[in-house]
Parts: sequence; structure tokens; C-alpha cells
Amino acid sequence: MFSVNEAIDSLLDGCQRLVESEEIDLISALGRTLAEDIFASLDVPPADNSAMDGYAVRQVDWQDVQIEIPLSQRITAGSVPQALESGTAARIFTGAQVPAGADTVVMQEHCEGSEETVRILRLPGMGANIRPRGQDITTGQKILPAGHRIRGQDMGLLASQGIGKILVYRRLKVAILSTGDELAEPGSELQGGQIYNSNRFTMHGQLAAWGFEVVDLGVARDDPEAIRDLFEKAAAAADVILSSGGVSVGEEDHVKDVVESLGSIDLWKIAIKPGKPFAFGRVKGTPFLGLPGNPVSVLVTMLIIGRPYLFCCQGIADTTIHAVRHTACFDKRASAREDYMRVRLGEQGLELFSSQSSGVLLSTSWGDGLVRQPAHEDIKLGDLVEFLPWPVLN
Amino acid sequence: MFSVNEAIDSLLDGCQRLVESEEIDLISALGRTLAEDIFASLDVPPADNSAMDGYAVRQVDWQDVQIEIPLSQRITAGSVPQALESGTAARIFTGAQVPAGADTVVMQEHCEGSEETVRILRLPGMGANIRPRGQDITTGQKILPAGHRIRGQDMGLLASQGIGKILVYRRLKVAILSTGDELAEPGSELQGGQIYNSNRFTMHGQLAAWGFEVVDLGVARDDPEAIRDLFEKAAAAADVILSSGGVSVGEEDHVKDVVESLGSIDLWKIAIKPGKPFAFGRVKGTPFLGLPGNPVSVLVTMLIIGRPYLFCCQGIADTTIHAVRHTACFDKRASAREDYMRVRLGEQGLELFSSQSSGVLLSTSWGDGLVRQPAHEDIKLGDLVEFLPWPVLN
Repeated sequence: MFSVNEAIDSLLDGCQRLVESEEIDLISALGRTLAEDIFASLDVPPADNSAMDGYAVRQVDWQDVQIEIPLSQRITAGSVPQALESGTAARIFTGAQVPAGADTVVMQEHCEGSEETVRILRLPGMGANIRPRGQDITTGQKILPAGHRIRGQDMGLLASQGIGKILVYRRLKVAILSTGDELAEPGSELQGGQIYNSNRFTMHGQLAAWGFEVVDLGVARDDPEAIRDLFEKAAAAADVILSSGGVSVGEEDHVKDVVESLGSIDLWKIAIKPGKPFAFGRVKGTPFLGLPGNPVSVLVTMLIIGRPYLFCCQGIADTTIHAVRHTACFDKRASAREDYMRVRLGEQGLELFSSQSSGVLLSTSWGDGLVRQPAHEDIKLGDLVEFLPWPVLN
Repeated sequence: MFSVNEAIDSLLDGCQRLVESEEIDLISALGRTLAEDIFASLDVPPADNSAMDGYAVRQVDWQDVQIEIPLSQRITAGSVPQALESGTAARIFTGAQVPAGADTVVMQEHCEGSEETVRILRLPGMGANIRPRGQDITTGQKILPAGHRIRGQDMGLLASQGIGKILVYRRLKVAILSTGDELAEPGSELQGGQIYNSNRFTMHGQLAAWGFEVVDLGVARDDPEAIRDLFEKAAAAADVILSSGGVSVGEEDHVKDVVESLGSIDLWKIAIKPGKPFAFGRVKGTPFLGLPGNPVSVLVTMLIIGRPYLFCCQGIADTTIHAVRHTACFDKRASAREDYMRVRLGEQGLELFSSQSSGVLLSTSWGDGLVRQPAHEDIKLGDLVEFLPWPVLN
């Protein structure tokens, strides 16, 4: 039996990162993965600028702050100022460039101004209310590394450097398929002995949330020829193949034989709950992850074991999951496997869903995330535990 | 000065939720908001089924577990079994329906089977290895409420109920615009006194991350006519208008006059850092949020104050932000305003970015999220503080 970390490390060891990249417009960069380091080509801000509406002055000129000063210019944001004439002040507005020779901006609330003069009532310290050139970013500094997944603020940061186009990896193509004669598609009528195929939708939705391109191949009947056909299609169309069900050692599971005949397959037992049976193989060279069949096991193994691997394939540098700590409102005995329990954030802390069965997908919709309970460790009410909010797994 | 909560409550008081909905295919439901309560129409699973590969038996028939039992049928997942003949066992596979009359499934590891008979080596308790009908969901039960934002697992849950189409609110349309002669577009050459417009990209990216439809109107020059024109376009095209900059009381800020002439505007001072100046108004009836001009202030006020309001407009029921707790690796003196600091998750806990200036967007790309420091409360190294990972704000 592998531990969860051993399973992840083993997958990452064999991971081949995408190399194909494409240039895209910054405005459509959300969720994409940078294929290049980004270095600053500009100081930000590019010049000293005013943090306030007020008056730009040179301190040495105005030791006596009670006299009136002539205004020599008016500087609005976006305009280019003249050097400040000795013995004068410049009217200046927030964001406007501070003129050469000025060393201080006096906020207008501390002045009495007219059209032509200003009286300074309170002179602040040297350099006050000036945002210096390069305060944000200095030319040449690395501001984002290759492998970074772009969020809204990163788009803002890149824009601030004047970068209108960036190089990103193309989207990872992930094929999904399910096997099982018992699976019916939602919208169709259920025949005797059938259940609706929920795993296809869980996988499709989660892959889309990660920003991957989903190649949705539907369901293969429990028949070696049908399964072989679908796997060959998947291998040709995608970078990674993901399937649910059909990877235990039962005699009705044809997936193992088919994948073996098209490449290789290892059946793992992973010390994870829910989960445990997990397959990794290659279908004509294309990596294949075989998830368990139970709905919650599909979600949990996808999030905990599939995610680092898929992120690595996409070229994302940081594949770790950043758990936070929160208070458990429950007791829970240790298990021999690492246990991922569905919990909700309540007033006092984390509350456990009444049923933790791997067939109960309702727990994942009810909950705000997972608590990770290490193997062989009890959880006692009031303990700080490792909490993985669902969004952190996206 | 408003507290952050007062500002949010005041916005939510005046919030008008979208009412227009549309029917969509479940497969494209990720991130959409349910416009209807969803009740279960099926028990899940629809019949008792086997949790194991093994043999289905009736306990009363087999008190002596050492004798051989004839096999009367073979039940695979998806097939419809006959009632179990008295005195026989049925070969059964994981997920297959348990035949009427059987009360126990014996896992195959505890049996010796041939083509025609099975010997049970260890008989488990009554009901063992059977997942009962309705264990997951009972018919009539509410499984998802209107106002729920759909994630991958919710797609799986809906699919398990056979639901192929759902009613969702149409996407909220949010218009964004910036004002300022000093703003240049990335990709263009910077003229003297100009800076690149980063706020447009931060707003665009964050709105897209929330799943809204972005109506991107670009930049208006610092000229009342140009600003008026852009605001009129925005009011006609969108449900909500979002702008950055131009809402303080300086004389070069035309936004206030323009919005006032087209509707109404209130300038707020909110006890938030970074942030503080914030405007709320209406442009020809369309709500208007005026964010500050500094890059980090734009992001923080969008996430903390804009998010609950925009979520409410979209029809999302839960607009609260679920902070978690984590350990501070820093000391921080109290401020008179609620302070949102950029932090990174390190080995020991949360580390503070060296510069917390509102001009330093780099801190938001470097960081994993925000720490919320309540007004007038010190943070001491080792304290458990409120942590908002970026993904939780999506």
C-alpha cells in the first residue's frame, strides 16, 4: 500500500510537462500558465508622483510657512511638468508627476490656495506625499516566473509593465471516459439496474474549473472491444486520459486488460479514504489515471492525487496544496488510511457531514471542503486540523 | 466613516437580484447560479447494490458456512437480477443490484468459488456489503437550493438525479471603465507622465474569475463629455458599473459630477486599508461602484466590498467570505482601519510582504492571500489570525 505522498511523488517522477506554448492577449490570460519568466522593463511608478491633491514645493525655499507663495504651474495626472521654479509652488493632483526640483507635496487640506498663490499652513517632512519612482517595481526584477497560473491581480501586474501579450502553455487536453453497462446519461430514462453517470459530470466540471480542455468521450459498455476503441480515441486526442471505475481486480473489469494490451498499467492501493484503488498506466504512450468508481472517491482522488500530476503536465510550477488550519467541532478516531472528510464551516469551526460514505456525493455539495486526517492520528474536538476549502483545490 | 461591515450591509440593503433565468445543459453549468431549488426525484442508489465483488446470499439458508452452495445466477452491474432462489447463492459484482431475497454479500476473498458452486469461508454480519437504496439521497429531499453556485461536485450530484438541464440566472453583466489622461494601454508606448492602466486588467480578470460577463469599456479621458458618454454606454449595456479612480473630492475628478448629473452618487469613507474612498451611486438607474485608484486598493475593495454586492446582484445566496485561521509569523500594530495585508503561506505560517503600500501590486502576485486585521487590534507573532486565501475570494 502506498501512502498518499508516495503515490503523488511517484506520479510526479514520471510527469512530462507540456512544451508547446502560444502567444495570447493579456486580457484573456485568466487561468492560463506562463511559459516564460517575466522581467520588469519599467520602473513602477515611472517617475516620482503625488500621493495627494496639493502643492509641490522645495523645502529649502519655504522655511517660513506662513507667507504666500506664487504658483508657477499646474500639474494634472498625465501631463509633463516643467522643473519647479525656485521660490514657487506647483499646484499638483493625485497621480501627477512631481516636477524636478520639488521634494515635498503639501496636502491641500494644510494650505490656503487661490488661483495664483498658496499659503502653507503646515509643512510636512521632507519627501512627504511623494510616491518615488520604482517603488512598486524596479527594472530588471523578475516579477512572475514561468509556470505561474495567472489570476486577476497578475493581469493587473503584467499590464502595469506595459505587457499586452504573453507566452502561455497551450491548455492541457484531458480525455475523460467512464465504463459500465449500469451507467445512464442524465436526461434519459433509467432502465432497471441502471444508475445515472455522475462521475462524468464531476470530472468534466472539475477539469473545466482547473482550466483544462476537456475531451469528453462518454461511456464505454463493459465490453473489451468498446473499451479498447474508446481508449484508442482518447490516446490520440488528449495529453492525459482520466477514467472512473473499472480498475479493481474483479473479473468484470476489462479496463486493466485493455490498457495492458495498449501499453502498461499498474494497479495501486493507496492509503487514502475515500479512494484506495487507483491505476496509473500508459495507452499508446499517453498517460492514464484510473480513478475509483464511487462518486466521492472520484472527487477526492482527483483533487488530492490527480491534481498535482495534471498541474505538472500543464507546466504549473506549484503543484502543492496549501492546507490551512481550523478548529474541529468533532471527535474522530484514527484510521489506517489518510482520511479526507467532508466538513462545513460553522460558527465554532468545522462540522462533519453526518454520512462520510463514499457513495454520498451530497456531502461534497453540502460541505465547504475537506479535513485531512493523517493515518493513525485521532482528532479531538477543539483540535486545530488541516482544512482544505474547496476553492483552494481549484 | 463607515466600517467595512456597515458598507457591505448598506450595499446589500439596496441590492436588486437578477430575475432573468435560462435553461442550460448540465455539462456547461460550472460556475453558474441555480435559479431553482432542486429536489430529489430518485432514491440514490435506486436499489440495494453490492459494495464488493462476491456472492449474494440469504443468511438463514447458510448457518453452516463450510458446505458448498449452488450458484443460481450471475449479476453484473447494469443487469436486472431475478429473486434469489432459496438455498442458492448469486455471483455478484461491485455496483450490481442485490437480488430480492438476499440479505448479505460475502466478499470473494472470504469464499472459494467455482463456475457452479461457492463455499463460504467466513459469513459476515446481516446486511454486510450491501449499499441500501436511498443511502445517498431520498426522493423529495432538497439537494441544492436556488442561489447555489455550481461546482464540479454539484454537477455530479445533479447528474446522479438524472437532471440533464437546469435553470440558472443569466450571467450578470458588469461594465468596467477607467478615467485618467495618465493611463496608457499595455502594448502601446508610454508617453511622458503616463502609466499603464493596470486596473482595467485586474477588474476584468477578477470579474471573469467570478463568472460574470465583462463589458469592457476602456478608458475615458479626464473630460466631462467623454466620461458622460462612457457612463451612458455602461448604463445601457450592463447590470452594474464598476470604475476605478476619480471618486475622491479633488477638483480634477469629474466622475462625481457626471454620475450626479445622470443619477445619484454618495462618496463614502470606509475604514478599510488599503481602500477608504469608495463611491456608490446610480447612473440612469444602473448601480455604480466607484473603486479607489491605487492598484491594490482596487483589488482589495473589489474582493471585500464589491464581491458581496455583485454576488447578490447575480442571485448568489451566500455572499459571505469564509475566512479560516492561520498562524501569523509577524507582529503588526493596530490601525484605526480594518487592514487587509498581503501574506504568503510559509512553513511556519503566514509571512508578510515587505511592502504593504497600496501602489505595490507585486505584493498581491507574490502572496497567497490576505490577512484581515480588525481595527484597533494588534497582531502578535504566533497569533491565530483571519486568513483569506485568494481562491476563497473567487
